Amino acid sequence: MMNALVLQSDFGLEDGAVSAMKGVAHNVSKVIPIFDNTHDIPPFDIWAGSYRLLQTVSYWPKGTVFVSVVDPGVGTNRKSVVVKTKGEQYIVTPDNGTLTHIYEKVGIEAIREIDENVNRLPHSGASHTFHGRDIYAYTGARVAAGVIPFEKVGPELNVSGVIRLPFCEAELIDDAIHGTIDILDVRYGNLWTNISRELFLKLGVSYGNPVEVNILNDSRVIYSNVMTFGKSFAAIHVGEPLVYVNSLDNMAIAINQGSFARAYNIGTGSSWRISIRKR
Amino acid sequence: MMNALVLQSDFGLEDGAVSAMKGVAHNVSKVIPIFDNTHDIPPFDIWAGSYRLLQTVSYWPKGTVFVSVVDPGVGTNRKSVVVKTKGEQYIVTPDNGTLTHIYEKVGIEAIREIDENVNRLPHSGASHTFHGRDIYAYTGARVAAGVIPFEKVGPELNVSGVIRLPFCEAELIDDAIHGTIDILDVRYGNLWTNISRELFLKLGVSYGNPVEVNILNDSRVIYSNVMTFGKSFAAIHVGEPLVYVNSLDNMAIAINQGSFARAYNIGTGSSWRISIRKR
Amino acid sequence: MMNALVLQSDFGLEDGAVSAMKGVAHNVSKVIPIFDNTHDIPPFDIWAGSYRLLQTVSYWPKGTVFVSVVDPGVGTNRKSVVVKTKGEQYIVTPDNGTLTHIYEKVGIEAIREIDENVNRLPHSGASHTFHGRDIYAYTGARVAAGVIPFEKVGPELNVSGVIRLPFCEAELIDDAIHGTIDILDVRYGNLWTNISRELFLKLGVSYGNPVEVNILNDSRVIYSNVMTFGKSFAAIHVGEPLVYVNSLDNMAIAINQGSFARAYNIGTGSSWRISIRKR
Repeated sequence: MMNALVLQSDFGLEDGAVSAMKGVAHNVSKVIPIFDNTHDIPPFDIWAGSYRLLQTVSYWPKGTVFVSVVDPGVGTNRKSVVVKTKGEQYIVTPDNGTLTHIYEKVGIEAIREIDENVNRLPHSGASHTFHGRDIYAYTGARVAAGVIPFEKVGPELNVSGVIRLPFCEAELIDDAIHGTIDILDVRYGNLWTNISRELFLKLGVSYGNPVEVNILNDSRVIYSNVMTFGKSFAAIHVGEPLVYVNSLDNMAIAINQGSFARAYNIGTGSSWRISIRKR
Repeated sequence: MMNALVLQSDFGLEDGAVSAMKGVAHNVSKVIPIFDNTHDIPPFDIWAGSYRLLQTVSYWPKGTVFVSVVDPGVGTNRKSVVVKTKGEQYIVTPDNGTLTHIYEKVGIEAIREIDENVNRLPHSGASHTFHGRDIYAYTGARVAAGVIPFEKVGPELNVSGVIRLPFCEAELIDDAIHGTIDILDVRYGNLWTNISRELFLKLGVSYGNPVEVNILNDSRVIYSNVMTFGKSFAAIHVGEPLVYVNSLDNMAIAINQGSFARAYNIGTGSSWRISIRKR
Repeated sequence: MMNALVLQSDFGLEDGAVSAMKGVAHNVSKVIPIFDNTHDIPPFDIWAGSYRLLQTVSYWPKGTVFVSVVDPGVGTNRKSVVVKTKGEQYIVTPDNGTLTHIYEKVGIEAIREIDENVNRLPHSGASHTFHGRDIYAYTGARVAAGVIPFEKVGPELNVSGVIRLPFCEAELIDDAIHGTIDILDVRYGNLWTNISRELFLKLGVSYGNPVEVNILNDSRVIYSNVMTFGKSFAAIHVGEPLVYVNSLDNMAIAINQGSFARAYNIGTGSSWRISIRKR
């Protein structure tokens, strides 16, 4: 049985790097289907790589093998690993924080360190900067094609030792929910928070109700205003802001057909805090 | 028999949205080939989405299923539809004007509204903002794979009721052809007009002849000059402008190895009018 | 036996051009796998197209057919050709310099001019500006699918007549190696030189040693400093420069997690000269 191989990286598509990875994979097996998650992860942004995995894995079949290469530490002693998730999928990646969201939200069944003696593209020994091609794509394709089983990738590691970036859950304190802005819906400039729909609904808010939204960068107030909780953009006029449930079932903030992030110059990460309360 | 699924959207490739669509489609059928038309439609630009379909569908085989998601009205009562074209292909899209060029230039054989009770990704009920993944990719893959026939997509609608954007045909008046600038050949900055080669040839112009080109934005003259009608860029020097027949068999304006659009700050749409006369 | 078809161009992915090429190929054969090398070659940059082929071909299987369309001379009498490389792969391209690196570094076994009477998409006669779709993708797919053998593409040409751009090899003179900056690792801003690892090692430098790097644009000194020869980025601190062996086994210059090219405003081509000496 052939499984899909889904690649992501921070390489961009401007040069031949992604093509070389696909060539290596296609050389391993001419019949595994090869797809892209995204290759426009901002350079070295491990958090974004971790998030994009969480955003997508559940839509792919069991058995799918994901290869993620955001690897600022290539050449250090950071480990190269394959994990089997609780969703019965595989992820091949440097163990550098890329597995944070999968660890927290999907769960990891088992993790193995890649033994580079058996899992490295033959004759690729001289370059020490492109493990994405020489190790990750090669190993991912071999697992997807069933050339080697997960169990033969290399020695098993302790799941609790997976490297994780700081990961905060949103909280309901008194009558407000406090969370962070995890990432942008890049193209549209919408803010995606770490506040789940489930937690949000504890505010007792219904579609069409106004809510008060405060956004802080560290302690500085960047935005403070009232907006509608809408089922979709259809609930409001073009140019109006709204709070809505995004495609990952978390709360998001947008300006209908505008860019909220650009309008208020808003970034992402743990210093970007958001609170929402019923009005 | 498996048909190709060809996806286009205004989602960009920076995040996981397109990957999620492909995962849903691959989950429906592991053997349908999945391709991209483009995902760089400018956000909410229904006209461009409509044009990009016209630009490409005829090069794909009969039976191909296109999914187009430029959907500023997601969550409104705009309909989700599947059309069968007179070219024996299928297009899955919100009925919001995306079918304008196909309606006018290819023809629509039949149109059916998607019944979301049977054609929605299971367990995707909570999000109301990503029909591209939950409805369009899912339905497109099911039609491409033959899981459901077109006839079972949902109730038939009246073809004449398809939503169309204003669509002007170019005209020959006296000794000049008057048209509009439909779209840019983005990367090169060439102007693609709605003037067909057939209509243009009524001017009695041959390769190598000079023509006078006037470009107006509303009533303001933006460009007025004489250039050559060339068979290809080889007909003129680098840096010179020319009129040529583009890859859709319409008339286009370019600067050889330069950007006409950037040079004269030219946009697209019905307010951008162009006239060409024999000199 | 089906071979992969790998496409590259300077078309970008913003419009439908690449999709039209893939549709034509898929129409020729529904079972050949179709991949992208890159479509973000800078417009008309034949050198970059040539380089991106060299960067990737060796990672794809024997029998793979590459189509490269960087074609500023479309419509001139530049030839359309298919070459068989010494690596037993095929490249379909305008013969305009795109084959420079393949000629110099891989070797060309045989070259044939495409006979457009038999190798042109039926009914595509009116457009003279999109040979990428009408001739190259069509012919490439037919060769990949085995519809026509290489020998039937058209008349054989003399390999020594392949059009080549000026191509300089790096040299060791006295105690310094002199080369050029061939191309950028675009996303990261690293400089990729034409100095091979093998030549560089003649300086007698080991990992961790300092080397002196001089970069000139024509005769103007742009950069002159000492940096470390590192095995990978792990050898130095974030923000430090280093010399390393890139993924093509050539010497490259980078700032760890920064952009060397942007930091010093560095370009590529034969006027951008670099010398490295042991310190």
